[in-house]
Amino acid sequence: MVLFIIGLGLYNEKDISVRGLEIVKEADYVYMEYYTSILGVDRDNLEKFYGRPILLADREVIENEFDKEILEKAIDKKVALLVVGDPLSATTHIDLFLRAAKINVKVEILNNASIINACGLTGLSLYRFGEAITIPFFNKNWRPYSFYEKIYKNYKNDLHTLVLLDIKLREVSDENLLKGKKIFEPPRFMSINVAIDQLLECEENIKLNFVNKDLICYGVARLGAPDQKIVSGNIFELKEVDFAGPLHSLIICAPNLHSIEKEMFQFYKK
Amino acid sequence: MVLFIIGLGLYNEKDISVRGLEIVKEADYVYMEYYTSILGVDRDNLEKFYGRPILLADREVIENEFDKEILEKAIDKKVALLVVGDPLSATTHIDLFLRAAKINVKVEILNNASIINACGLTGLSLYRFGEAITIPFFNKNWRPYSFYEKIYKNYKNDLHTLVLLDIKLREVSDENLLKGKKIFEPPRFMSINVAIDQLLECEENIKLNFVNKDLICYGVARLGAPDQKIVSGNIFELKEVDFAGPLHSLIICAPNLHSIEKEMFQFYKK
Repeated sequence: MVLFIIGLGLYNEKDISVRGLEIVKEADYVYMEYYTSILGVDRDNLEKFYGRPILLADREVIENEFDKEILEKAIDKKVALLVVGDPLSATTHIDLFLRAAKINVKVEILNNASIINACGLTGLSLYRFGEAITIPFFNKNWRPYSFYEKIYKNYKNDLHTLVLLDIKLREVSDENLLKGKKIFEPPRFMSINVAIDQLLECEENIKLNFVNKDLICYGVARLGAPDQKIVSGNIFELKEVDFAGPLHSLIICAPNLHSIEKEMFQFYKK
Repeated sequence: MVLFIIGLGLYNEKDISVRGLEIVKEADYVYMEYYTSILGVDRDNLEKFYGRPILLADREVIENEFDKEILEKAIDKKVALLVVGDPLSATTHIDLFLRAAKINVKVEILNNASIINACGLTGLSLYRFGEAITIPFFNKNWRPYSFYEKIYKNYKNDLHTLVLLDIKLREVSDENLLKGKKIFEPPRFMSINVAIDQLLECEENIKLNFVNKDLICYGVARLGAPDQKIVSGNIFELKEVDFAGPLHSLIICAPNLHSIEKEMFQFYKK
């Protein structure tokens, strides 16, 4: 019948739209995708507020069992898939859309706020953002520097960069993978401080000479939540700030701010 | 006490979040800004569904009478200002935030979907968009071509461009302005077809040689509404499509699409 992919917004069970809530209450099955992002509340709160049992769909379900577990049900039932933030910000969900289209299952998308528009809370013009960049966790053997070069490209085009920070949910360690043991590691969320350390390491090695005390940025944490934190400053100032719990993002400002952007920058100055 | 700036989302009275609706029901005053965008429904529907009278705030109120008409009330009352789409996508609302901060009125922003994330419905990666560009209506004496050069800049950086099309709401004609008559012209919304004509005029005069049959784009109309229309094709193909009523936007694709973007492009092909 229909697969509804419903954006939950940024923080808690009440950030769903009124229409989204109506659909959840009527749907035959309600799934929640939970590996590309997190909400500020747990499943129990959602179930209590929505009055519906919620089936969790982790990475394995979405990537390997989606057709059988979810899509087949949507052939003759109403199925809701809840997604934190906005549904189509991640390629994963576009792929689901295409898989549904191939077997003629109708898909309805309910957009919602995501980090992409919430970073407008800083006062930076959303129209001046270049490509969004993700910083992955470095490890002993894998320290890719391409994100640094991409941020530089936006910077020299006088554009802001939204820098998304790595999330590891329900990962299996290499050691356990080799042993065939499906034991999940505790979740890891990259902090702004770690992201800045990694950026400084890139600067030291590639030397494009822009990650220095003149580089102004915003650190933002838990946007949309009551305890959201927004701090502006140069990159060394932000490195010293404790932003507390996840999710963190970093925004690297264009070298030239417009007048209203400057005023907001002062407002949020460390 | 508090000024709540609440995003209404893209289409109708049910696209507000559950928390937004709770605030509207409790607020002492409810205003609605209505000159930077439009909803698919009128004020009556909103008032009926929200169960509250809604005061309209047009351009004059927001730009000239905001402090006295709205902000002063928020010193000791709860005031909700409803905004179509997402609150901080327009510079206007960032300015309101700053004006409130200056007199220590607390502001709470409720984000919602806007055209900026809804254009993810095309399947184009939201992370690959460059600067968003607005095309203004040409008139006899004013035919600025700078938007064309800005689109080209994204294009040669292999980025997509969201092109917003001009809206004229409650404008007074030059003639009536001279006579001191405050008579509002009927609203005007630029269509995709007019936008393409203007782009072709730029190409003819500036000749950066990219607005040609190889330029692939999306035309999108009324995103988020039940009758939304999404069509992909080259720029000449889209010029012939009737997208019907407002709001229209144009998306100029990067020259190289990723594999999933290509699949979605075929799905929406004219």
